[in-house]
Amino acid sequence: MDKEEQDRLKKLAAVKAAELVKPKMKLGVGTGSTVAFLIAELGRRKKEEGLELAAVVTTSSRSKKQLESYGFQVDELATVDQLDLTIDGADRIAANFDGIKGGGGALTMEKNVAVNSRQVVWIVDESKMVDHLSGFPLPVEVLPISCEQNFKLFQAEGLNPKWRLTGNKRFVTHYGNYIIDLNIDPIPVPSGLADYLDHTVGVVEHGLFLGMCNEVIIAHVNGNIEDRKK
Amino acid sequence: MDKEEQDRLKKLAAVKAAELVKPKMKLGVGTGSTVAFLIAELGRRKKEEGLELAAVVTTSSRSKKQLESYGFQVDELATVDQLDLTIDGADRIAANFDGIKGGGGALTMEKNVAVNSRQVVWIVDESKMVDHLSGFPLPVEVLPISCEQNFKLFQAEGLNPKWRLTGNKRFVTHYGNYIIDLNIDPIPVPSGLADYLDHTVGVVEHGLFLGMCNEVIIAHVNGNIEDRKK
Repeated sequence: MDKEEQDRLKKLAAVKAAELVKPKMKLGVGTGSTVAFLIAELGRRKKEEGLELAAVVTTSSRSKKQLESYGFQVDELATVDQLDLTIDGADRIAANFDGIKGGGGALTMEKNVAVNSRQVVWIVDESKMVDHLSGFPLPVEVLPISCEQNFKLFQAEGLNPKWRLTGNKRFVTHYGNYIIDLNIDPIPVPSGLADYLDHTVGVVEHGLFLGMCNEVIIAHVNGNIEDRKK
Repeated sequence: MDKEEQDRLKKLAAVKAAELVKPKMKLGVGTGSTVAFLIAELGRRKKEEGLELAAVVTTSSRSKKQLESYGFQVDELATVDQLDLTIDGADRIAANFDGIKGGGGALTMEKNVAVNSRQVVWIVDESKMVDHLSGFPLPVEVLPISCEQNFKLFQAEGLNPKWRLTGNKRFVTHYGNYIIDLNIDPIPVPSGLADYLDHTVGVVEHGLFLGMCNEVIIAHVNGNIEDRKK
């Protein structure tokens, strides 16, 4: 599939997701190429239909800029209480709608937005859909203070840790932390691993998003846009 | 008991704790008035007995400065791997050596140091010793991004949250986060609460230090210094 056809599919999926956005909603918006099409569609509706939202929260400066370019005022999550709906991408989605996120390094922000949203919808192409979580490294955000100890611990546990890099330097998150990618494929019991990571001192957040997503919009290579509800 | 007598007791407890520090150890040092006496004693031994340590890590800039004033080079925890011994204060210690820490707001750093230490010793006066954890608010460090949601969640759970303030502004931690103090007295099942907080998205760390301490040195008002091992 060429880039043009891919973009056509992404746009179709984004427009489908945008149908879930109703006037006066408190909306969470993620990041990524498909989400960029979603924001463009919201911008079109604002201009052509006068779409107004009660609040918009996002997880990246890129999405923030794009939203603002269409005249949306972007809010801080803490001031908004509960969001009605969050639309985001995902790196992998299992059959039970558990997901891996954080390929872009914004997992902590993304998870805080997701858990404070009544409804979470992920837009993906079909390559992201798997039976069990697999095929993508699991990002873990760690405080610098004991990051080396965390890395060794993960090594000792057989979790095949790798430092996330940009060039030959360690990637630094929005919060000034590092990311260790765990290479476990497939992840046998995601809830058990999530539990272990939640309890590990030095771990700020991890990319297992379990039981958070209610609906997935899937762009299939055959051109179908599938709307799958939990 | 007057200040002078109190200081005399703190110093006795600190000197007792300092006996645990052996040459070539990798040492973690906490913060507080009793720990200040400990550092002074280590300084004396460095000068008079030539005490050398393989590494020293600390949890506050105050202790760092004091250690450096005695000629100790202070290291970063991440570079040290495992510490042999950490000596710190505590806000409350239960009969089973579970503790509440974080009255000074450095709980995240303190817990990272504690879990990466083979042996953890707390020095306290007898007023800190309790049967079950009680009598002190439990500090929870939260990311600003969803701090209001965390606060409301804790309210809804009946945990009587209060913002930690300095003056009339929110206290900001070393990591740029806020502290919510939970007022639960006594804490019925500390491990259950710790589990809940570990799983709460937005929580960076909390002040329940469970199963981390091996030995407590207690300065009693009658002048006795008690060395209690687990």
